[in-house]
Amino acid sequence: MTHNRNQMVTLARRPQGKPKREDFLLVEAEIPKPADGEMLIQTLYLSVDPGMRGMMEAPKSYSPGFKVGQPLTGRSVGRVVVSRHADFAVGDFVYERLPWQHYSVSDGRKAKKVDPNVAPLSTYLGVVGVPGFCAYFGLKEIGKPRAGETVVVSGASGAVGMTAVQLAKLESCRVVGIAGGAEKVAYLRDELGLDAVVNYHATDDLRTALGQACPDGIDVYFDNVGGDITQAALSLINHHARIVICGQTSQYNHPSESGKFAPELLIQKSALMQGFVVYDYEDRNDEAVARLGQLIKEGRLQHRENIIEGLENAPQAFIDLFDGKSFGKQLVQLVQTT
Amino acid sequence: MTHNRNQMVTLARRPQGKPKREDFLLVEAEIPKPADGEMLIQTLYLSVDPGMRGMMEAPKSYSPGFKVGQPLTGRSVGRVVVSRHADFAVGDFVYERLPWQHYSVSDGRKAKKVDPNVAPLSTYLGVVGVPGFCAYFGLKEIGKPRAGETVVVSGASGAVGMTAVQLAKLESCRVVGIAGGAEKVAYLRDELGLDAVVNYHATDDLRTALGQACPDGIDVYFDNVGGDITQAALSLINHHARIVICGQTSQYNHPSESGKFAPELLIQKSALMQGFVVYDYEDRNDEAVARLGQLIKEGRLQHRENIIEGLENAPQAFIDLFDGKSFGKQLVQLVQTT
Repeated sequence: MTHNRNQMVTLARRPQGKPKREDFLLVEAEIPKPADGEMLIQTLYLSVDPGMRGMMEAPKSYSPGFKVGQPLTGRSVGRVVVSRHADFAVGDFVYERLPWQHYSVSDGRKAKKVDPNVAPLSTYLGVVGVPGFCAYFGLKEIGKPRAGETVVVSGASGAVGMTAVQLAKLESCRVVGIAGGAEKVAYLRDELGLDAVVNYHATDDLRTALGQACPDGIDVYFDNVGGDITQAALSLINHHARIVICGQTSQYNHPSESGKFAPELLIQKSALMQGFVVYDYEDRNDEAVARLGQLIKEGRLQHRENIIEGLENAPQAFIDLFDGKSFGKQLVQLVQTT
Repeated sequence: MTHNRNQMVTLARRPQGKPKREDFLLVEAEIPKPADGEMLIQTLYLSVDPGMRGMMEAPKSYSPGFKVGQPLTGRSVGRVVVSRHADFAVGDFVYERLPWQHYSVSDGRKAKKVDPNVAPLSTYLGVVGVPGFCAYFGLKEIGKPRAGETVVVSGASGAVGMTAVQLAKLESCRVVGIAGGAEKVAYLRDELGLDAVVNYHATDDLRTALGQACPDGIDVYFDNVGGDITQAALSLINHHARIVICGQTSQYNHPSESGKFAPELLIQKSALMQGFVVYDYEDRNDEAVARLGQLIKEGRLQHRENIIEGLENAPQAFIDLFDGKSFGKQLVQLVQTT
């Protein structure tokens, strides 16, 4: 499927609270032409990320913000359809952060070739992409779980969490997930084989529920959410615990006092708390791709994708993220590849 | 000097707020007799520590509390005067946590011989004792300063801080101390050669003052105090900063909201925050003693002691800690050794 005109999704206005359809606009434009040293990429898959919400605010964080009237941008996998770039040929598949549109011009500096033989193209936005890298490096370099230890992962049914719990299981740890909703809990317990799963929707006393799931305390807490869930987990950490601060999604829209903690806890437990962004490990991405791709091929690492078709449905896919209903990596497929 | 009767300082009642003389009692008792496998230690030096304040509360922290009517206990250096223990001879010098009294019986299990030829006896309670170990291991194992980096130490004029700043200077770092009062600032700047010292008593805007002292931001923050001072330091940390949580003295009597922080900061800066207690490194104490003792002999590590004479003056020495007037390691000498 090809298009004669380009289509793009722009930010119509900055959302107030939960994003609405009216915050986005579908716009048509000419397909751009690559100059010398550039290429034209047709986007195949868009990643729909909660982190984009923060970029819809006026810039104030470490991420640059989106501009009103301009297309959103996000992690994407595409195919080179015109190349005037020495390093990329027509037919190459590439990963890049691109505007939410069908066709984009790239100078290739931030494009990275991806190989559909190592892992399916869509997974470069999930389990062998940034979310997978977050799980892999966060666990390996900060959490450092040892066999027999208890690893707790919050946001366990998200793209990062789902990978983290499985990698921790592969290290022979007792792995406990925290997620919201019976369907997610069942998946984590029955499909991924976690030792225990705490459904935070189904308890008024998360601290007690988590304590029952972790009779030996918590050695590694892999944090994707922050807030009250993190407070409950921190109350159970063991001596020499490692706390991986990967995300704080509960705080992105509603920063709360409960998202804070007293550093004295770290003294009492001789504990480590470390944050990271996946770009810290950019030079080791190939290592992660190779390891995660291999695990997928061997059937030892499962992943879950929720793929919506059509660029025009991308805004709704983004809005749906905040309902907490879907789980697995949320993607939009712009064109059928086979 | 010897005594026919034992004397001890007991906790008369749990202090309300700042400790008072009436909270302590000087009591006489018989000198105890060691049984087989025990020894009698005559205490030479007592360490007077702010951390003892927490142990005067009803037990609720990681430290066991003192009992009303019983002697206080603290880090001490003594001399074996009677031995019925195979591993200790009369005349040996030992380090142990002992009651605040002239003579104590010990079974030797937690006693450690100290060598006056490696370092002066009193320094085993300071620069080559627990405070020195805190500075040494906290900096070496968590802070990991590299030449040219900016290291900020709060509580810089305390026994831990004073050692930490000098060890950081020996790593060729730009070292900035935070302390309260002109005399301490002058000492840190002129005697210890710090690159900058911020006097938190002399500024209404600690954040700005610290920012001016750290034009390249902060790479290592060695935290002895917590609270507002720590908030100011955290606002200036660089990417990949290491935050050593050694003490939170500002929080021991007055826990405040300002002693808290949002873990999201650690993501934004890919930063590490780690707490520790010196007992984590107990099996490496000899390494620290050797290194610190050598530096003292070479004149490359200065220390400062404030020695009060007489067990009866120990309560006042403790009370004086909270005035912030004295600085350097606070000790009480019970008997002249020469």
